[in-house]
Amino acid sequence: MENFAYSNPVKILFGKSMINRIGKEASSFGKKALLVYGKSSIKSNGVYDQIVKSLQKASIEFEEHPGVKPNPIISHAREGVKKARETGCDLIIAAGGGSVIDEAKAIAAGIHYQGDLWDFFIGKAKINSALPLITVLTIPATGSEMNSGFVVTNEETKQKYSAGSFYSFPKVSILDPETGYSLPKEQTAYGASDAVAHLLEGYLTTCDEDSEITDNYVFAVFKTIISSCERIFKDPKDYNARASMMWAATLALNGQQALGYKNISFPNHAIEHSLSALYDMPHGLGLAIIIPAYMKHNISKISKRLAKLGGNVFKVSKDTETIKAYENWLRKDLNLKTKLSENSIPREDFSKIADNADGLIKLWGMGISKKETESILEKAF
Amino acid sequence: MENFAYSNPVKILFGKSMINRIGKEASSFGKKALLVYGKSSIKSNGVYDQIVKSLQKASIEFEEHPGVKPNPIISHAREGVKKARETGCDLIIAAGGGSVIDEAKAIAAGIHYQGDLWDFFIGKAKINSALPLITVLTIPATGSEMNSGFVVTNEETKQKYSAGSFYSFPKVSILDPETGYSLPKEQTAYGASDAVAHLLEGYLTTCDEDSEITDNYVFAVFKTIISSCERIFKDPKDYNARASMMWAATLALNGQQALGYKNISFPNHAIEHSLSALYDMPHGLGLAIIIPAYMKHNISKISKRLAKLGGNVFKVSKDTETIKAYENWLRKDLNLKTKLSENSIPREDFSKIADNADGLIKLWGMGISKKETESILEKAF
Repeated sequence: MENFAYSNPVKILFGKSMINRIGKEASSFGKKALLVYGKSSIKSNGVYDQIVKSLQKASIEFEEHPGVKPNPIISHAREGVKKARETGCDLIIAAGGGSVIDEAKAIAAGIHYQGDLWDFFIGKAKINSALPLITVLTIPATGSEMNSGFVVTNEETKQKYSAGSFYSFPKVSILDPETGYSLPKEQTAYGASDAVAHLLEGYLTTCDEDSEITDNYVFAVFKTIISSCERIFKDPKDYNARASMMWAATLALNGQQALGYKNISFPNHAIEHSLSALYDMPHGLGLAIIIPAYMKHNISKISKRLAKLGGNVFKVSKDTETIKAYENWLRKDLNLKTKLSENSIPREDFSKIADNADGLIKLWGMGISKKETESILEKAF
Repeated sequence: MENFAYSNPVKILFGKSMINRIGKEASSFGKKALLVYGKSSIKSNGVYDQIVKSLQKASIEFEEHPGVKPNPIISHAREGVKKARETGCDLIIAAGGGSVIDEAKAIAAGIHYQGDLWDFFIGKAKINSALPLITVLTIPATGSEMNSGFVVTNEETKQKYSAGSFYSFPKVSILDPETGYSLPKEQTAYGASDAVAHLLEGYLTTCDEDSEITDNYVFAVFKTIISSCERIFKDPKDYNARASMMWAATLALNGQQALGYKNISFPNHAIEHSLSALYDMPHGLGLAIIIPAYMKHNISKISKRLAKLGGNVFKVSKDTETIKAYENWLRKDLNLKTKLSENSIPREDFSKIADNADGLIKLWGMGISKKETESILEKAF
């Protein structure tokens, strides 16, 4: 088990009607908020109204910054920074899924930075401050509500890159499982696939394989996501299943999922980011395509880890059985098309995808060759 | 799944040689520390020297407050407050197990309070401030290193009571699994029993039994403690087993073990505190005596919970089998004497024990009659 430092300052408010507390919480941090959100979903499911009512009650002014894309883009984040500055916002509120929260983190970090926002993503600048951020999560998936990282796409350079800092933790995150009732089925599935991917990246890439407590934590969260999805697909208004799913997705990337693991990396994210950047593919879907292929490609190296995972999560005992069980879950339970060919990504693009992924692979220092990436893509075809 | 608010601001530094960072950490919070510890163990295992060297390097002055008892007593905590005030300490450092950390929390809370320290424990006063606290944990057991509660015994009134506040979270807790190498075997066993008890109190007393994510978290931590103990008893210097055990014990009472559970209570702790207060019994041993009896007494009420626990942790399927497996683990694996009669507690004392427990049962509003307590004691005999 590797040494680690861990702290997570996010205050979580979890459950029914918790959104009504946002005004009171906001008043601890500022007077005027930039309210960041995506399309119309928070208006149709009542989240927007709850937030506005609570902010008004607490006399918190706000400006709106709608239109965040599912893969948020840097130009829109830059506009958010401009708007927050011009209107004198001293607080950011994000209402939506991980994309909205990620863009809001970028905006919060950018306010006091005089250079270009993209500098944070390419290692050209460090984040040294951020406006306080409050999030209202509506899609369990990315864990962004309880961590300090964020991912944004530069649509000009076709780079989907990440940034982060201790200043980027939200101050408060509100998680109301009832917001899931109106989620389209595929959103629940993408979220589940994404959350599990966060568990798997650390679990499969650690160089120190003797961290029993963290392995068991990973299995616990993984099993919960499987059983919760099963219940949700039977009854989308199963509150307790939505609740377990939501908290599990948070626990899947709040840092605890990899404590004690050594030199972990995010190879599947690097390749998936390329798919999202080039084809605007949903992140959770891209991961469902890449990870089984990654497992097959690396089977000899991660055979023991796969077997242990299978034994604890799927009641199987062999590495190959684990991959099969995981793929089955993605395809049959989550109903995801886990092949590139099923998603209209042609073989001819492999070199372009690998090239794009290579930028991130090099930035993250992962040492995966383009040939290897192409070989994984081939297995994902 | 019940609504919850959760935040945990403790910064954890985990692993080998992390104690050497204490000087640097301390310098963020103060200039002069009260160094609280127990007997000689931190001197013989090198922890004391590491701390002193690091503090000196960072020019942090310190006063010593040794002599904390395994069940810490209020008079000694009062002395600590006096010493810290007289010598102008602006920071508390606790080096030891949960007892040392708990007394240190009491001292930290008492500095700015003009009344008697015991007021915090009997609900007569609220903690409104505390000196910053840094802990160096040497015994995985109580979870006090990452929570905001603490337990102290009033040796005059024979009350072992608890207190807590948001101000009582340590600022930094340093966990070095190597400190476990010199632990007597029974200390490891008491710690394991204590940590598991923290999981069981919430798991068995929740009124909302549909919190799958937290149930799975509980099982994960419980299983880790079992497998780690097995390895530790085979090889006391098995670093990774010590490490998993140490982090598991922290996760067993850092708040996460009961998120979503409803109206949980600590009935076994209430009764055990009576044993500790009257007979100075080690806390983990007392819990190993009381909990199996509590399970038997309440079997019809908690039958389903026991069966689920057994299925996930012990590979058994019936409530009675779970109790048996848990008792076996305590007796055979941990080598604990789980009967009152084996620990020289006479039947004639049952009324006195129940009377003592009743104070805490009433303070905590638990509604367990003295007759019921005696019936549990009978089953524990």
